[in-house]
This record gives sequence, C-alpha cells and structure tokens, in this order.
Amino acid sequence: MSTGHAKPDLVPAQFLLLRSARNPLTLLRPACYSLTMKHTVTFLPDNVTIDVDAGVSLFKASKSAGVYVLSSCGGKGNCGKCKVVVKSGTVDRGKSDAYLTNEEKQRGYVLACHSHITSDLVIEVPQESRMQAKHKIATGANTEVLIKLMREAGGCLDSRMMRVYMELKPPTLDDNLSDFERIRRALDERGFDAYHMHMNHTVLKKLAHILREANWKITVSLFGVSDVTEVLDIFPGDTTRNRYGAAVDIGTTTIVVYLVDMKNGHIVGTASSYNPQVKCGDDVITRIVYATEKNGLQELQDLAVGNVSSMLTELSNKNNITPNMIDYVVVAGNTTMNHLFYGINPQYLREEPYIPTAAFLPLIRGMNVGLAIDPQAVVYAMPNVASYVGGDITAGVLVSQMHKQEKVSLFIDVGTNGEIVLGNKEWLVTAACSAGPAFEGSGIKFGMRAMEGAIEEVEIDPKTFEANYRVIGDAKPIGICGSGMIDALAEMYLSGVIDQKGKIRDEIKSKRIRRGESGLEYVLAWRVESSINKEIVLTEVDLDNLIRAKAAIYAGFATLLGHMGMAFSDVDKIFIAGGFGRYIDVERAVTIGLLPDLPVEKFQFLGNTSIIGAYYALLCDRLRHEAEDIARKMTYVELSVSRSFMDEYMSALFLPHTNLDAFPTVKKEMRRAKNWYAHE
Amino acid sequence: MSTGHAKPDLVPAQFLLLRSARNPLTLLRPACYSLTMKHTVTFLPDNVTIDVDAGVSLFKASKSAGVYVLSSCGGKGNCGKCKVVVKSGTVDRGKSDAYLTNEEKQRGYVLACHSHITSDLVIEVPQESRMQAKHKIATGANTEVLIKLMREAGGCLDSRMMRVYMELKPPTLDDNLSDFERIRRALDERGFDAYHMHMNHTVLKKLAHILREANWKITVSLFGVSDVTEVLDIFPGDTTRNRYGAAVDIGTTTIVVYLVDMKNGHIVGTASSYNPQVKCGDDVITRIVYATEKNGLQELQDLAVGNVSSMLTELSNKNNITPNMIDYVVVAGNTTMNHLFYGINPQYLREEPYIPTAAFLPLIRGMNVGLAIDPQAVVYAMPNVASYVGGDITAGVLVSQMHKQEKVSLFIDVGTNGEIVLGNKEWLVTAACSAGPAFEGSGIKFGMRAMEGAIEEVEIDPKTFEANYRVIGDAKPIGICGSGMIDALAEMYLSGVIDQKGKIRDEIKSKRIRRGESGLEYVLAWRVESSINKEIVLTEVDLDNLIRAKAAIYAGFATLLGHMGMAFSDVDKIFIAGGFGRYIDVERAVTIGLLPDLPVEKFQFLGNTSIIGAYYALLCDRLRHEAEDIARKMTYVELSVSRSFMDEYMSALFLPHTNLDAFPTVKKEMRRAKNWYAHE
Repeated sequence: MSTGHAKPDLVPAQFLLLRSARNPLTLLRPACYSLTMKHTVTFLPDNVTIDVDAGVSLFKASKSAGVYVLSSCGGKGNCGKCKVVVKSGTVDRGKSDAYLTNEEKQRGYVLACHSHITSDLVIEVPQESRMQAKHKIATGANTEVLIKLMREAGGCLDSRMMRVYMELKPPTLDDNLSDFERIRRALDERGFDAYHMHMNHTVLKKLAHILREANWKITVSLFGVSDVTEVLDIFPGDTTRNRYGAAVDIGTTTIVVYLVDMKNGHIVGTASSYNPQVKCGDDVITRIVYATEKNGLQELQDLAVGNVSSMLTELSNKNNITPNMIDYVVVAGNTTMNHLFYGINPQYLREEPYIPTAAFLPLIRGMNVGLAIDPQAVVYAMPNVASYVGGDITAGVLVSQMHKQEKVSLFIDVGTNGEIVLGNKEWLVTAACSAGPAFEGSGIKFGMRAMEGAIEEVEIDPKTFEANYRVIGDAKPIGICGSGMIDALAEMYLSGVIDQKGKIRDEIKSKRIRRGESGLEYVLAWRVESSINKEIVLTEVDLDNLIRAKAAIYAGFATLLGHMGMAFSDVDKIFIAGGFGRYIDVERAVTIGLLPDLPVEKFQFLGNTSIIGAYYALLCDRLRHEAEDIARKMTYVELSVSRSFMDEYMSALFLPHTNLDAFPTVKKEMRRAKNWYAHE
Repeated sequence: MSTGHAKPDLVPAQFLLLRSARNPLTLLRPACYSLTMKHTVTFLPDNVTIDVDAGVSLFKASKSAGVYVLSSCGGKGNCGKCKVVVKSGTVDRGKSDAYLTNEEKQRGYVLACHSHITSDLVIEVPQESRMQAKHKIATGANTEVLIKLMREAGGCLDSRMMRVYMELKPPTLDDNLSDFERIRRALDERGFDAYHMHMNHTVLKKLAHILREANWKITVSLFGVSDVTEVLDIFPGDTTRNRYGAAVDIGTTTIVVYLVDMKNGHIVGTASSYNPQVKCGDDVITRIVYATEKNGLQELQDLAVGNVSSMLTELSNKNNITPNMIDYVVVAGNTTMNHLFYGINPQYLREEPYIPTAAFLPLIRGMNVGLAIDPQAVVYAMPNVASYVGGDITAGVLVSQMHKQEKVSLFIDVGTNGEIVLGNKEWLVTAACSAGPAFEGSGIKFGMRAMEGAIEEVEIDPKTFEANYRVIGDAKPIGICGSGMIDALAEMYLSGVIDQKGKIRDEIKSKRIRRGESGLEYVLAWRVESSINKEIVLTEVDLDNLIRAKAAIYAGFATLLGHMGMAFSDVDKIFIAGGFGRYIDVERAVTIGLLPDLPVEKFQFLGNTSIIGAYYALLCDRLRHEAEDIARKMTYVELSVSRSFMDEYMSALFLPHTNLDAFPTVKKEMRRAKNWYAHE
C-alpha cells in the first residue's frame, strides 16, 4: 500500500483518486508502484475510506480499515454473520448467496468474507452486523460490597506489591554506601526482608540520576516472590499515593477492567467492551485455529492487549493517573484467553490430550506484552486448571467460597464455554462441557449478545401462540440474546409450539409458524416491530443448536456427579456465575433442562466472579495463594472422551430431558399446561 | 555519509572518486546529497578507506574507519600520543606542533586529534601509535593448578547454574499436567526445590513447541537465587554436556576471558586483548568523563561488551561451542569497568563522596548488555567495595585467602590504578591510591604497555653510565614498560645518574645524558637500535611522573598501616597481584621505594587474581558467597581526603624515601655503591 501519497483515512474516495492520479511524484516512481490494481472502499456509517488491492475480500478490507464486521467463524466463510450491503460499486459476491435470503439479495446484501473487491465501493455495515463496542456491560463494581465480600472470604489488603517512600541520608565520605545498598539499608530499617533485594537492569541504569535529582527523597515500587524482593521501579518524591493496580477479566466475548487504588482497594473506575478478538472467531476453538495461522497469534494478542490498554488509558486519563502509577495487573480468563494474552501459541490446548503451556503462568512484566502500564509492572494470571478450565473458574470458586464449605456445591459459568465445578472443602472436581456459544448468539440466526436491541424476555400465549417480548434498552429488536432464547425455548415448549425434541408442530394454525428458507420457523417479532426491517425468527436449526448447548451443560453436571457417585439431591447450593447468569430466569432454565430441577432457593447468582476473583487476588496476597491452592486441588475430568458424558448428553437432547422424573417441577407444570389445554 | 555509492571500505580512493563522479544516480539525487564537502581518507598500513566530511579530525575519522590510534586522553588533545604521519594530502594541523619534535614535524607527523581534514588524504599510523591487539598476554590458565588452588581455598563444583536433562513422560488424558508443571514435577522428582520455579517470558513462549519437537526429551538450564529456581532456557535433547561459562577480567587496560566447561571446571580456552576503551582514555577518570559526554557511555559499553563478545565467539568457534551453550558469565573488574560494562553512568564514582550505583550489582541477563551468549544467561559481577576498590580486588583477596589467616597480610594490585588491602581473618581495610597509569606507560614519553618491543629490563653501568636492556620478544625497542621503568629508575639512582629527587645530574659526562626538547633526558637506546628510528629516552618529566606514582602507592601502604596503628614489620605477607606484578623485580621496586623494604620471601606473586577469582566464583557458589562476605567485610579508607596520606605522599617523593631508615637494605646498597665509587 505504498502508493506515494498520504494516508487517506477520512478523505472522500473521489478526491483521493484525483490526488494520486495527479501527483507527479508517482509518475517518476514506476518501480515503487505495486502492479496490483487498487480500489477505494468507503465503509458506512463510520465513513472510513481506504485503498485496497483488487481481489481482496471485503472482510479483510474491513479489518484493515479498523471497521468491525460481526463474524463468528473469523472470516472462514461458514457462519453467515458478516452481512454487509453494497451501496455503490461491484463485488465478486462468491458464495454469498448460500447464506442470504432472497430479500437480502435484492437489497444488495453480500457476505463480507465471500465477496471480493472488483471496483471502487461504498459499503454499508448494517446494524445487525455491527459490534456495539460502547455498549455498557454491568460491571457490578461497588467497592464497599466487594471489600466486605473479600473480608468475609478472609481477605485483607496485604498485596506484596508495595510502594515505599524514603528520605535517604545523602551519602558522605564516612557513609559511602552505594545507591543500591543505601536503598536496601533503608528497607531493612523499615522492617523489610531486603537481604535478597533485586533490581532490574532498567532501574539500575537510572537509579543514580533519580536519587540525586530527587535530592534522595524517592519512592520505590516493590514486589516480593518468596524471600526475594524486587525493586520494580523508582520515582522521585513521594508517589506512594499513586499506587494503582488493575483487575482484568478477559472473557472470550467480553473484557472487563477495574482500575483499583491499591492503598484502600477503592475501585477508581470500571470499563468493559467486547473482546475485539471476536472478529477472529466467536469461540475459543476458532481463535486457536486462527492463532496457528500466519501472524494470527500476534494479531490476537495485540487485539486483547490493545483493548485492555485502551480501557486502562481511558480510565487513567479520567482519573489523572499515568500509566507508570499502575504497578500490578491481575488477569483472569479462560486458558485460551490467558495464553493468547501472554502471546503463547495455544495450539496444544486443542489437540488431544489438551495440554496448556502452563496452568500457573509465571509472572511477566508489562513490557513483555506491551501493556500500557509501568514497563516493569507485574502481570499475574489467575491459575488455570486445564486447557478448558481456566483462571476465570479458579477466580469463580474463590469468590463462591465453595472450597471452604462442608456441604457439596455446584458452580457453573456458562459464558461462551461452559465450565462446572463440583465439590466442598475436601475435594473439587471440574469439567468443561464445550456447550458452544449458542446462548451468546453464535449459530442462532438472529442470535446476539445481551446488548441494546436484544430480546431478553419472551412470553408466548398458549392459546393464541402470540409472542410478547422485552428488549434491552427498550429499543426495537435486532435479535435475541441468551436469556431471551431460554425464555423462548421454554415458552414454545410449554405452549406446545414445539415438541419434546424441539421440533415445531407444523399442525398448529398460526401466522407465526411458517416455513422459511431453512425449514420451519417461529416469528418472534414482525418486520414492522424490528429495527432491521426483517422478521426476527427462531428456526428449527436454531432450536436444535440451543438444545445441544443446554444438553451439553446438563450432561456436564450429571457426569461430574456420577463421577463422584452423587445425585443432584446431594447438592446444597448451585452458584451461577458469568454475565450470562445474571439475566436468566432459573425456572425457565429448569423448564428447558439447562439447570437441574432443584428448589429455587438453592440457586445463587454471583455475577462476574472472574473479575471479582481477580480483584481479590490483586489486593490480597493470601487470597491469591488461596486461588492457587484451589487450582491445585481441582481434579479435571475430560468430558470429550467420557463415555458417560456422551450417554448423558444423548439423554439430555430432549425438553427438559428423556427422564422426565428428574424434572418433577417441569412434569407438574406440563401437567398443568395440558390440564389447561384440556379445560379449553 | 549517504553518498549513494556502495560502502567503499577497501577500494582505493581514486577509484572511488571516479565512481561517485561518474555514477549517474548521484546526479539525479541532489536533495539527498549532504552539502558538506567530502574527502576520502586512507589509513595505512591497514589500507582502510572512508569518506569523511571536511573539517573532521583525523582522530574521529580513524574511529569511524575502525582504525586504532593510540591515545591516553581519549582525543581531548592533551596527551600527545596520537601521532600519525600525513603521506599525501593536507590537513589543518592545529596545535599539533606543541607535542612534536622538530624532526617529527619534518617527517610529516601530526597529532590526529588536533588535525582537521582539508583534502583527500593518505595517513600512516606509525608503529608507536598502534595498538597491538593481538599481543599475547600470559593468562596463566592451567586448569589443574587452578582447580587445586580452588579446592585448597575450600571450593568445589557447586555452581547454582545447572543443566538438567529430562525424558518427560508425554502427557495423556490421565496425566494432563501442563508443560510448565511437567518440568517442575520432573525437577521435584530429581530432588530440586522447584516450588518457586520461574520461567521467563521468552522461554515460556517457545516451551510447548520445543517439548513436542524434541519428543519430550529436553534439557533445561537452571539458575537459583535464594529459593527461587529459574528455567533460563530450554533445549531439545540432551545438551548437559554443552554447559559452559565464562570468567572475564575487565581491566582498565587489558581484558582477559576464560571459557570454562562447567561440568569439570576445565578451561577450554583463554583469550586476552587490550581493552578497546583505551582509545577513549587511559585511566578510569578519563573514561568516566568520556562516558558523561554525548553518546560516550553507550560507546564505552559497546567497546567492552563487543570485545568480550568477539573473544568469546572466537574461543567458541575454535571449540565447536555455540553462544547458547554459555549460560553464565562472571565478570571481575574495577568499579568503573563493571559500571561501564553494565551501561550504568559512572559519573558519581568521580564526584565526591564517590558513590557507585551498586557495590553488589544485581544479576542481569546476556541480552541486557548484548553479550554473545545465551540471551537469558546470567551475568554476575564480583562485588565492589567502593568507587575505587572494585570486584577485581574482592576477587584478588579471595584468591590470596588473606581473609582466613591469623597473621596480617598486605595485598597490592598495581595495575592501572593502585589498590591495597590490609588485614586478616578478623578485619580488612582497603584503599585506592590513585597512582595513575604511569607504570603502564601513560605520561611517560616512550612509555608503553608490556608488549613486544617494550624494554622490560635495564642495567646501567655505574662506571660508564652505559645502558644495557632486554626487550620483550627480543625485538628492537619501541618504548619502555613498567618493569623496565622500575629497573631504569633504580639503576639510574644507584649509578648516580639521578639524585634522590630524581633529577638528572647535569655534571656527569656522558653522551647519554643530554638536554632534549623537554629538559634533561637519559638515552636508553640509540636511534640505530630502535625500530622507530628515534632515540628512546627517559626525561626528567618522565622520572617525576614515575616518582609520583610510586610515592602514591607507598603512601597508600603507610596510611593503611597507620590507620590500623601498625608498622610494616607487623605484615607477614605481601601479595602482589596483576599482570604488572608478574614481571617486576622486587629488589629494584624496593630500591625506588615502590615496595616496602621487607625480606624478599615475604613477597608473593599471585598473577592475575581478578580472572582467577572470577573463575572460582563461576564454578563454586560457596566461594562466590565468600567473595560477597569479603566485600562486606572490607572497610574502605578514602585516601583522597586523608591528611596522613598527603603527608606520607610528600615524604615518599624521594628515592627511596625521605626516611632512609625505613629502607635499611637500600641504605646498605647505597653505601656499597658509594664505597665502590670511593674505590675508583
């Protein structure tokens, strides 16, 4: 793209073409010119224009332009999500049509990944294909509540990341200790065990200058591992007040950041955004594949680190904090996420026998990953258990405190994957049930994440089969999110729209039940109601995907219990973690057989335990060690090769389950529903 | 220097000029051309040609060309050493003439630092201005002797730098430990305390790949600090045999390297060269000043590190060793040298109260300084005591074992500086006497280092005043080195050529005594004898400089003893260290009052204790700790502000001393000499 003129970011395309044609320099540099034909592509509504080689895919062009286009498969061409509209110009639309309705075709839709550029273009990214990066995700960051919870969990502010201010005695001929040993002596005098004091090379080189410039009044940031204390950085004057840390939850779908005042645990600010890696694939498997291709690993790392950095920078700016005041970052994420964050090739997470590079990732420095914090700041990752049970789950167990209880609890984090922990203070077993991200919208025609425009609650009238719904932000609907899907599935089942296998009953007379391009479908919202000028439907394919997902999760529970020779009745508490968990209706989730049929009071929503656990570990070294003990204590059960998991899964591919006796409440409800039909 | 043609290194100047005049490309690029006039300078005998801007000094041009020209002041214009001959072309000779004899002027000599380029030039660097980098310095590296000495000193092969080969059990679904923890378990099984195992980010990123590529048969290099064990690097297969280390003595004047097989302590090879930093100044003070100017620090670091790297590379190549087999380097040098090696600004070493950045330099990695070893290899510096008593002296005391003896010993390392240690197993005091590098040739008209062509022994006939001398390498003399100067001074004194103040007796009738351009001088070698077509003389200025140097050293001894309320007679042993020390004649050194008048059997030559101590510490962790204990135990006495040192110094500015009673042997010898005159 070295075309000899300035980077054309926001300049209209026509003007650019004129400019480059007129620029006499270009005439004199034929050898520098690429022989490939260039075209100008403008993306709306962002109004970003770039020059691209002819033949490049629109998906790749959108990435170059920094324009997000939704994709579940990372541009592999098989999810059908990256729909864009050609407003002017022509493209080679490739296999686009296989994923588009006739109406969409007529309206100029193409799939960005299948379409290749053949002329100058104006492309619109329609609302349903956009990522709403600024959408607010509830972060639940109430310092007082969290500090109270942390104290109840036995925590306190005892981080081994410290800042110490010292007014050193300036050296004299009689007191001629070196600069390094002068600091050590001062630490000794303050009761630190500084015998094994270490200082990195960068600090060492600037030490003498800073001490003298600051007139021997300095602050050191310190971090201790075992009995080695390292001086991470040195600052002129008293900067002990500027002691910040960050807790980071790197979810497959969402990234959340807490900027924390380390002096008192106060959460200075929170930020969240979608994980920009989603454009390389919705789920961890797609991202692992992406990472092993070309420069994929670097790209994925840069996306996540860049995202965290920009959130930290924004929060810092807002609070007059500079990056070098951030000494410590604790990251919680699933194993794939933390490997990618560290820049470690995740390939072997995916290949049997599914081995991470490290469950306990060693400490690294801010500069190792290029995070916008002090270059020497320590980055700690909450410990993983196995390839598919990561630091987010360790954090979750820490927050649940199930590992200290006599009675047996079950911990679930549905999120993009589906991890489960069963146990008590004696033992912990864990598994990942590869439920897939259906409940987060992937593989569901109008599936989307829980953001503005998503249908989050659904009711279906069993008499009229008419639907009622509630949309996040009280907006016109764009699609349907996880809690909406659970509701819809339960309501369709209870109202009789679908049978136990999730098949739509063709015989029902209702305009809402119709044959669409991919088989039978149920219309949740009519075209006039939606903001995308389309009917929002759930297809039989969607329903099948949802049932597979819920079956995997339930089978996970059942297998772990079976593994321990226990039944659901032995479970005292069920902790539900994750953003996903906050919005779902437990009763509806039981109806579809996603959750076991236990008394509602046994279920407890914990919110985003990943970020809360990271916050605990950031502030409290004792709890950080406790998380490590939890990770060590957890026994991982590999479900993907478990025969009983497969059996359980097959049995769970029904609503609510093959064995209806395991769901007495649902059975009763069904009977009531049927009685009610009978009354009619 | 972007003139648009290829780098002209070894192409004759005329051809280059033609080429650049003819090259049509240059005509088309007027904007790229510097407006400064360029000239072509060829340096002989190396036959290196470069293009240089008009007005640049010949000294700077020689550095750009990579041609060494001797200099004591680092190009400041005040040492008069950088004499070169203009063979063709013209220069603005500046103040050159102030430093040149009439004869030299006639022969086309100029001072490189004072002369500025005004035309194309051919410059010859005469032999006396060249650094003979290939000169062999005896390294005394006899493995058997050194291992025996190390064992006698209580040492053994217990380095905390290890390589461990492991055939790991490949992971299975049932044994799904992560790669990192698999290594930890294997170390645990081998009895290592791997609980606090650390792994740096670089190794972490390649770990998974190497393990699988190597079929789980790998070698790890390990280093332990306190109870933290770090995996420094990982290698496919069994590379435990490839476990090398290096001991490095970074002297102000000379750098010595031992490449050591860590398995058995065997010295695989040794190399030595002059410290290329000498071109930035002969002594530590000049280098400190140089380091504080512009890019001086970086340049000095690069010179030393580059020199050690090239020696290591040469030794490695010779022995089929690759840089990544070198895991550990122990460096011994004075405080300025190790600060420069680490790239630490040495400015405050020179400013009262003379404070190093660190006496105990923290561990750094090969990559921190860019050394040609494994990037993660550990670099350890022998601990310093103060700004002018460095790791070389700590190493020296370790080798002398004086810190374990009941009786009091005196340790001297004359070298370029002049450090002294006094003490026994109870206490140690140390001082640096800033003797200056006169005995290494600086400030002496024909002074030079102990290399081929240096007069190393002198006899003067008291009857005829004729001189006899011996030259290193049995060559024709170029100049005179330290041991030659001591001999000459002693012989001139005993033969009556000079008086007690070092003044030449004008009244003596001898062709050898004459008035030269800088006052009276004594001709050691006639023009026909020398290889530089000049008389080699010692001037009164030279003699004065030598007497000042010896006075400073003797005053150092006396002051330290006085500090402890002791006399020379209380000293049981005098250990003489340093390359300088191996060649000198003790009796002659006593005659001039450089060494105290004690029985010859009390003196013991230890050779280069700096490199030997580094070698001990490399192989033996116990002795490395012992060196640290020594450094902690030493009390530094700052002589530069000591009143009694000044008194002692003034008293020592005579041959052998104001107080002749302190030198009974010399007194006797003088009487014999006088009797002998009387007999005549």
